[in-house]
Amino acid sequence: MQLGMIGLGRMGGNMARRLMRGGHHCVVFDMNPENVHRLTADGAVGSSSVDDLISRLTTPRIVWVMVPAGDATEATVESLAERLSPEDIVIDGGNSYFKDDVRRAKALRARGIHYVDVGTSGGTWGLDRGYCLMIGGSEPVVNHLDPILRTLAPGRGDVARTTGREILQGTAEEGYLHCGSSGAGHFVKMVHNGVEYGLMQAYAEGFDIFRHANSDNLPEEMRYDLNLPDIAEVWRRGSVVGSWLLDLTAAALVENPDLSKFTGSVQDSGEGRWTVMAAVEEGVPAEVLSASLYTRFRSRQDHTFAEKVLSAMRYKFGGHVERSGP
Amino acid sequence: MQLGMIGLGRMGGNMARRLMRGGHHCVVFDMNPENVHRLTADGAVGSSSVDDLISRLTTPRIVWVMVPAGDATEATVESLAERLSPEDIVIDGGNSYFKDDVRRAKALRARGIHYVDVGTSGGTWGLDRGYCLMIGGSEPVVNHLDPILRTLAPGRGDVARTTGREILQGTAEEGYLHCGSSGAGHFVKMVHNGVEYGLMQAYAEGFDIFRHANSDNLPEEMRYDLNLPDIAEVWRRGSVVGSWLLDLTAAALVENPDLSKFTGSVQDSGEGRWTVMAAVEEGVPAEVLSASLYTRFRSRQDHTFAEKVLSAMRYKFGGHVERSGP
Amino acid sequence: MQLGMIGLGRMGGNMARRLMRGGHHCVVFDMNPENVHRLTADGAVGSSSVDDLISRLTTPRIVWVMVPAGDATEATVESLAERLSPEDIVIDGGNSYFKDDVRRAKALRARGIHYVDVGTSGGTWGLDRGYCLMIGGSEPVVNHLDPILRTLAPGRGDVARTTGREILQGTAEEGYLHCGSSGAGHFVKMVHNGVEYGLMQAYAEGFDIFRHANSDNLPEEMRYDLNLPDIAEVWRRGSVVGSWLLDLTAAALVENPDLSKFTGSVQDSGEGRWTVMAAVEEGVPAEVLSASLYTRFRSRQDHTFAEKVLSAMRYKFGGHVERSGP
Amino acid sequence: MQLGMIGLGRMGGNMARRLMRGGHHCVVFDMNPENVHRLTADGAVGSSSVDDLISRLTTPRIVWVMVPAGDATEATVESLAERLSPEDIVIDGGNSYFKDDVRRAKALRARGIHYVDVGTSGGTWGLDRGYCLMIGGSEPVVNHLDPILRTLAPGRGDVARTTGREILQGTAEEGYLHCGSSGAGHFVKMVHNGVEYGLMQAYAEGFDIFRHANSDNLPEEMRYDLNLPDIAEVWRRGSVVGSWLLDLTAAALVENPDLSKFTGSVQDSGEGRWTVMAAVEEGVPAEVLSASLYTRFRSRQDHTFAEKVLSAMRYKFGGHVERSGP
Repeated sequence: MQLGMIGLGRMGGNMARRLMRGGHHCVVFDMNPENVHRLTADGAVGSSSVDDLISRLTTPRIVWVMVPAGDATEATVESLAERLSPEDIVIDGGNSYFKDDVRRAKALRARGIHYVDVGTSGGTWGLDRGYCLMIGGSEPVVNHLDPILRTLAPGRGDVARTTGREILQGTAEEGYLHCGSSGAGHFVKMVHNGVEYGLMQAYAEGFDIFRHANSDNLPEEMRYDLNLPDIAEVWRRGSVVGSWLLDLTAAALVENPDLSKFTGSVQDSGEGRWTVMAAVEEGVPAEVLSASLYTRFRSRQDHTFAEKVLSAMRYKFGGHVERSGP
Repeated sequence: MQLGMIGLGRMGGNMARRLMRGGHHCVVFDMNPENVHRLTADGAVGSSSVDDLISRLTTPRIVWVMVPAGDATEATVESLAERLSPEDIVIDGGNSYFKDDVRRAKALRARGIHYVDVGTSGGTWGLDRGYCLMIGGSEPVVNHLDPILRTLAPGRGDVARTTGREILQGTAEEGYLHCGSSGAGHFVKMVHNGVEYGLMQAYAEGFDIFRHANSDNLPEEMRYDLNLPDIAEVWRRGSVVGSWLLDLTAAALVENPDLSKFTGSVQDSGEGRWTVMAAVEEGVPAEVLSASLYTRFRSRQDHTFAEKVLSAMRYKFGGHVERSGP
Repeated sequence: MQLGMIGLGRMGGNMARRLMRGGHHCVVFDMNPENVHRLTADGAVGSSSVDDLISRLTTPRIVWVMVPAGDATEATVESLAERLSPEDIVIDGGNSYFKDDVRRAKALRARGIHYVDVGTSGGTWGLDRGYCLMIGGSEPVVNHLDPILRTLAPGRGDVARTTGREILQGTAEEGYLHCGSSGAGHFVKMVHNGVEYGLMQAYAEGFDIFRHANSDNLPEEMRYDLNLPDIAEVWRRGSVVGSWLLDLTAAALVENPDLSKFTGSVQDSGEGRWTVMAAVEEGVPAEVLSASLYTRFRSRQDHTFAEKVLSAMRYKFGGHVERSGP
Repeated sequence: MQLGMIGLGRMGGNMARRLMRGGHHCVVFDMNPENVHRLTADGAVGSSSVDDLISRLTTPRIVWVMVPAGDATEATVESLAERLSPEDIVIDGGNSYFKDDVRRAKALRARGIHYVDVGTSGGTWGLDRGYCLMIGGSEPVVNHLDPILRTLAPGRGDVARTTGREILQGTAEEGYLHCGSSGAGHFVKMVHNGVEYGLMQAYAEGFDIFRHANSDNLPEEMRYDLNLPDIAEVWRRGSVVGSWLLDLTAAALVENPDLSKFTGSVQDSGEGRWTVMAAVEEGVPAEVLSASLYTRFRSRQDHTFAEKVLSAMRYKFGGHVERSGP
């Protein structure tokens, strides 16, 4: 199929490449002409503006937007809304808030344009490994896009089949899934990232406990100087905690056992925050997902104001003066 | 009554003073002769060693130990065990672990010596305000100590009587309580401090949210530049969240509205840790008390190793490079 | 001053009474004529509809809306917006979301009508004790309302003055505070309730640990059969954890030491949820406030779906069959 | 090699089978003669008592204890200590607390007997998949056991090699690891299970949010009726959250999409509790691991006493009567 790709960063560029490898035709645009140039070298048709990109697509057009969530995506979708024709399809493949999808889908529907939201997992590994796709939108439109989605997705690969799946149909085993109406794709992706934060934090706390198992204030015969890279590695085989994130942790620890190359200032993207908000809106207790988010907030500050409040109270009731160190 | 006080720091010194104000006789000892000197100036009988202190007490002796919990208390109690006579009473008024009380009480019982554990709250304010006392030990021994305990305790004061209390007996309204057998006093004090951590953290998080209510990344018409000292003050009157800790917070914020005098490195004493362990041993979910403890652990580090693990994973799966700042 | 009060439930009725006791004139309305009748018996001017209420007020009118937050408040404010005149003042004294205040204030401003948001703490005790008021809106309008606010507020009472307050001005010591522009009142009240959840949960966990201190699976010499009403009482005197919430806990435990009259199904109002969302929006870690909210979510379910997922995993990897009991 | 196996339950029986498949000789004992019988049918030498088992082993003997942690393991190790000879080796392969290992190793060392602690992950899948082994003890003894450990472990299998591992030596890639001195094996296994709890809880919360995404109190256009089995399946391919636990979740959801076969009463074994205690002892914040443990505590109760305390306070300050339902 033919598809226009707007945004050729780490994600968009590789997705276009994977699509072309799969026999699809890509017309591409990026604010940075160098990114366009790199893709045309790989076989894409370049374009110099959104208008130019649109003019090179046959109707009904398919335009995949892969620019940063928030203002950039909003502006791109608005600009497409003004330029595209009824029956054209806009796909937001970024990390948008599902509530924005609902709003945008409604606005585009008023113009006869279809809107599809696709949550994408796979990171820099997706070009070869494929992208796990979580999709929201109306069924006929999503079905129409099936050849593209199937190419982007990982496929069954050598992942062992889930017992009981044999009798079921659907695309989940191929690594892409139509989750529901507009916003459903990004909703599922949002929670996916929330879960990801929780998984990461669970491993991180475990290795932190290992790291301090040799601490001076423990009884001498109960101190252990543990080999963290080896522990991560041994868990990769036969243990209950095996996962792709553990594989990455093992790789990182082999390279740099004390992780001294990292300061520990951890960003969070919107999804973790929105997941906590969704849990609160639904009335679902989400202790672990929240705690994982808060750890990241905390990691980017020298001290919280909350901690100063604690110190101030302690000074007031007990004359306690601050000391540092563990 | 006559009582020997070992340990004349911030707590022990003032407790001896409050006892003398109440008409009791104190024989005092401290490793630091200056502390002894200061108390004798206030009317106490000084002593130059534990042996000297013991020799100045009439039998059955009462010795109140008010030295740092852990090794110092252990050594003092052991040394008293070797020197005292049957029917003498050792009181551990420090912040000992209740399991140590159980062990020590048993060891002293073998020598016919009584052991009483007293958890004490009141901090630097206790001299005038009185000390809230939580007591563990055998009933006749605790009853024998009643005159001392009653003097140390705050008494009813002008605290409004709890409806329904009129028909009850006991000393709780006087601010001291025999909680149960050995260890019970420190057990109740331990949880008291665990609760204290939780209360402090609740206020601290609230003021942290206020402090950031003017943040740049909020919509402009929803930013508030709040007056924190005034908020703490207004809550002191008629609101559900009024408390002594809030009073202290209000006082601290009036002096130093941005709490710039504090770095936010917050110590924890043993009680918070033991409370979490007790909850785990009992199978009681204690989310808030644990979170309050962990905040303090975190406050004393630049970064946790856990955070480096998160950064390492993020780098591995998405090529994410660390950025700092909120 | 003259004031119209719409909504005469537990809060609105008593606020009108307190205002009348303070010499103000109240015109009142409630969907339930009985509530109106009760207030007229106490000296208010009754009215039979919003239109009727408006007609009985002299301009510029002051109308205090004290109906349930959400749809009821929205409808009432909208209906007032259509009926009132420029320079009239609408006060939302309920538990509205501060973002709704910002929106409503803007809408009313377009009609020349002033909007003031007031967060109110004090519950059923407010009639006598006064209401702690947190106020948002424009300064001249809030100043104009000062006589009313002062009457509703607790005043200084016998609460000890905060050291350092002598040289400061303002109304915080009187128990009411203009916090900032529209929404600021409900923002401060929102966090107030978030803090309240945290404080309550801290005590609750502490008493839960006490309650299980006698558990069979603890070593026999470390089991304590604690007297919870007495512990709550003793903490009321001289201890660091004293508070109004503790006073209430002590009263509840005296009446019903095992709290068997309560099932433990705990509601949450919007404020706890919004506080967590505000923390997330600001990037402030709020572990304790979140955990306190989640406890309430959890308390209203037999089992979460999350727990079933855990059981299903355990069954799959270890053949573990569910057992109940602690 | 020849090895005695005491305890032929789900774990011990299959471990003996895997060892025999690997060419080792097993002498087996279990309190239940039927379990012994089943193993002899598979080629083991049966025995009728611990004494009988010992008499059938050539010195230096190797005895693997695979009975429930706690009293049963303690009794078995004690009984072996009395019966074995210097240079014999006792292996505790159960889920013992590492502090018990330290104590036991010391006691056995006094008799010249070696003690090795082995933490084992793999559950019911281990017979075919192999067991991930985490080992504590002195190096020469662990080296002596290498043939047995290698057979029990999964080996490299088809797990992709970690980049950077090529130049390293050691057994971690084979799925077994000598972690350090006595207790180190169970320490690493303990944290392994703590991490497992955290991973499980992260997925569980995510699916709980999905499960409630169709809730009545959400705006109608933002409700999603999600297909949970399909979501679990799609995440298995190309996504960041892929793991063996996710594989199991996908299998469980295919069989029983609403997990109605489970009540959600979730047991915890000692390891989760000890992990939290270890974190507290080390001063490491472990929010997620603690929250995961507390969820399980909570899951086994109708209501906590803490929740009753909250209800009691709410009743006291606001007259709030309990309602049930979400």
